[in-house]
Amino acid sequence: MSELRRDPWVDRWVIMAPERADRPQPKSITAEWPDASADDPFAEGREAETPGELLALRTSGTLPDQPGWRVRVVPNKYPAVRAEQSGTPATEGQYQSMPGIGAHEVIIECPQFETCLSRLSLSHVQEVVWTYRERLRFHRQQAKLAHILIFKNKGRAAGATLAHTHSQLMGTPWVPSLVQQEVATSIQYWHQHQRQLWTDLLQQELAVGQRVVTVGEHFVVLCPYASRFPFETRIIPRTTESCFTRASETEIQELAELLRSTLAVMTRLHPTLAYNLILHTIPLSEQETAGFRWHLEILPRIGQTAGFEWGGGCYINTVAPETAATCLQDAWESADTA
Amino acid sequence: MSELRRDPWVDRWVIMAPERADRPQPKSITAEWPDASADDPFAEGREAETPGELLALRTSGTLPDQPGWRVRVVPNKYPAVRAEQSGTPATEGQYQSMPGIGAHEVIIECPQFETCLSRLSLSHVQEVVWTYRERLRFHRQQAKLAHILIFKNKGRAAGATLAHTHSQLMGTPWVPSLVQQEVATSIQYWHQHQRQLWTDLLQQELAVGQRVVTVGEHFVVLCPYASRFPFETRIIPRTTESCFTRASETEIQELAELLRSTLAVMTRLHPTLAYNLILHTIPLSEQETAGFRWHLEILPRIGQTAGFEWGGGCYINTVAPETAATCLQDAWESADTA
Repeated sequence: MSELRRDPWVDRWVIMAPERADRPQPKSITAEWPDASADDPFAEGREAETPGELLALRTSGTLPDQPGWRVRVVPNKYPAVRAEQSGTPATEGQYQSMPGIGAHEVIIECPQFETCLSRLSLSHVQEVVWTYRERLRFHRQQAKLAHILIFKNKGRAAGATLAHTHSQLMGTPWVPSLVQQEVATSIQYWHQHQRQLWTDLLQQELAVGQRVVTVGEHFVVLCPYASRFPFETRIIPRTTESCFTRASETEIQELAELLRSTLAVMTRLHPTLAYNLILHTIPLSEQETAGFRWHLEILPRIGQTAGFEWGGGCYINTVAPETAATCLQDAWESADTA
Repeated sequence: MSELRRDPWVDRWVIMAPERADRPQPKSITAEWPDASADDPFAEGREAETPGELLALRTSGTLPDQPGWRVRVVPNKYPAVRAEQSGTPATEGQYQSMPGIGAHEVIIECPQFETCLSRLSLSHVQEVVWTYRERLRFHRQQAKLAHILIFKNKGRAAGATLAHTHSQLMGTPWVPSLVQQEVATSIQYWHQHQRQLWTDLLQQELAVGQRVVTVGEHFVVLCPYASRFPFETRIIPRTTESCFTRASETEIQELAELLRSTLAVMTRLHPTLAYNLILHTIPLSEQETAGFRWHLEILPRIGQTAGFEWGGGCYINTVAPETAATCLQDAWESADTA
């Protein structure tokens, strides 16, 4: 028996239909590149193959765009948007356009060939998350763009074109519609209740318990009520800050730990897992607000999106978040005791 | 140089970034099932393997759920929603749910094993499109659901789990958000201008010509200004009807002809093409309105959707619709003269 669930933030219904998991399944399309390590333009020693670095965590005494780095940020070699484009917004009859002004950066997460963020050491993952915050801080100071979306595509099925573990930063002159909807709903709720929607949801989730994977001092890891995808997971801070630039060193440390563990547990359950990791934070064009709260979303690319999703903007999910949370919890505990 | 374009109907920005097509490309994931014809539950003679038929176009004298049909509609064997579910809408704290009431049907487009709709005869494709209209009419008469989405998933990359060419019908107790946005924008425009947004857009497109693929007596085939995907194409009627149930026999005939030709031309350009075909029509829960216009959308699964799309609800398209329209036109003309 299926159930229809509405997302509390965006106008999106999800059909929870576990019985559809019994369908004949297509073979996995999440397999990785066979010999990607042999041709890895993100490897240490091949710095000349990427545009010059914007930021790097490096051993002191080493030079920019030379070996000696641990995390390295470079402009995307094939940028969707770029800083230096000329032109102005235009209207042509019913149509609006803007020049492709923006920022498109690649955060190379480690110098050696490695496909999984979760296989890096904890201190290394902390440096990756710290780098996210620093790049966001840089663009907030620049104040030229409306929004910064930091995300990660892991695996071909998640849209990655290179196997070496990396994240991306996309700065745009408009606010992406999903972020805009989340922010608008959050602020409306705040005005009505003088409390964050996030606060009330976390309270409800912790009381119910069914969808909570694990609880840290500063964060809660849970599978959202209206998950679009099997094993969709969010890492939600207990702080009420709207902007990720405000994350403290202690929060960065715990966030890295929970992110690394969550991805490791997911990968143990689904060895060829492809996923998208997304950081939602208040747009640069908005005031920091008491209503919104930054958070991380992990969207596994399990199951296919098809005409219903593309044509309607709604989703069919074959794994209820309660089931996913239980699986993740069990795998987490067996890892802890291993 | 990239350009940012806003969709006129839904709040969605698309980055047109042709230079990103130069990136190292992952191998195609659109390959079909190797021996699907050997195990084809949709084949004539295997009617017992599907739920009993709801409608079939058959040779007179043949019996339901027996051979002798040309197009056959059956309930989905693994339905995401179903007619007979019990329960009522529920609220649990911040969350809303509904029982999974609805309709989930499969339209089997031909009795023999065939993967491409465009390889069926013209009269056969006309019967398929006629069947879409009949099932929509049935559900409009029943008046139990809010919306009917008819769509087709062609190829694994488009989410199909069976290779035998088929479409699906999904009836839901809510209106999918993308449809709701399109309808709302259309009605607002109508109130402001006393003309359809569609009328004005078609006029502009026909005057500019750059994105028009072909023009029929009753329809225009074009690549939309803010296409999300390479070679995204719409078939837009010249009629101002909001509901596809109003399509005349003459319109059904021309629509089938243009759909078949468009898919054939696309498949010539991309032999392993996977795509979603979507029929947008006024929700059953809405009055038929002068503001909206039903239409067909073809969304090729060329290129990957990744963190930017899933996290932001915006898109990067590496083929400008002007380029796609020119390619389709050229291929169309060379087919006409072949």
